[in-house]
Amino acid sequence: MTVSKTAAADSTRASRPARKEPAEPAEGAAESTALQLGELSELLGYSLKRAQLKIFEDFLRCVAPLQLTPAQFSVLLLLDKNPGRNQTEIANTLGILRPNFVAMLDGLESRGLCTRMRSTNDRRSHILVLTDKGRAVLARAKKLVATKHEARLNELLGPDNRAALLSMLTKIAQEF
Amino acid sequence: MTVSKTAAADSTRASRPARKEPAEPAEGAAESTALQLGELSELLGYSLKRAQLKIFEDFLRCVAPLQLTPAQFSVLLLLDKNPGRNQTEIANTLGILRPNFVAMLDGLESRGLCTRMRSTNDRRSHILVLTDKGRAVLARAKKLVATKHEARLNELLGPDNRAALLSMLTKIAQEF
Repeated sequence: MTVSKTAAADSTRASRPARKEPAEPAEGAAESTALQLGELSELLGYSLKRAQLKIFEDFLRCVAPLQLTPAQFSVLLLLDKNPGRNQTEIANTLGILRPNFVAMLDGLESRGLCTRMRSTNDRRSHILVLTDKGRAVLARAKKLVATKHEARLNELLGPDNRAALLSMLTKIAQEF
Repeated sequence: MTVSKTAAADSTRASRPARKEPAEPAEGAAESTALQLGELSELLGYSLKRAQLKIFEDFLRCVAPLQLTPAQFSVLLLLDKNPGRNQTEIANTLGILRPNFVAMLDGLESRGLCTRMRSTNDRRSHILVLTDKGRAVLARAKKLVATKHEARLNELLGPDNRAALLSMLTKIAQEF
């Protein structure tokens, strides 16, 4: 954040009234840069979004050698677990909108991680298949996720809290 | 999700082979539509994302009369709590990227909810101010969020679990 830098510079200009509101003395300028979150810090949705962004950032860092996003990883996992399912089924299960999903599949296919095959029964439908390369990348990704990403989360929260968190999130996703 | 509905309809048409691929007998068709999530259901990031999407959907529904997204609501809350701060400070605090934030402000400003004023000290910087209309809309939004959205979440989780969830999410957002 560049906020503190800017504010520190501003605080030396006593003539600027906009900074006065928290009535901080000059040496208090550093603290005055932190904005009041107010009710925001009590909103579950806001905290969920911030936590989710942090977790996705860490995921990207941990899986960086394989260049996989969380969503791409989900697709590979699902294809591996559910061979022969079609595009619509995978997209619906993950809650990904069709245009986004098609773009994502284009990317995975161009990297040789999965292939789309026209269903022999329904020519309008595409069956998705993980390639050998896709399976190998998935195996490596799973290892990175488990040993780096999830391990760090476990360390931060502790296994009991982690389990409680997962169960509450699942409840919200399924019942809210 | 429309998956199960479609499949239920399909299972009555024995002649449609597209649903046959998992080699299920006709009466097994309904179960065969649910995909195996496998490791996905154990991943915190995946559950967080799904829960967050659900909560945002509900937020949009609850605040529909005011046409505010969760992010717009956050901005109004923050402007109200921190008058006279500039664009960069607000965007950084909320973790919103600059181009997205500028577009969002355009929207809020065109609806008369906030105004951008060029800072008298730094002509490159814009101070953000909530208008009276913005304050009134925020007050109504807060009420809808508290009495509809957050109240339903509280009911689903119970106050103790809700507090535990909030504290874990904040911990992840701040320390992970």
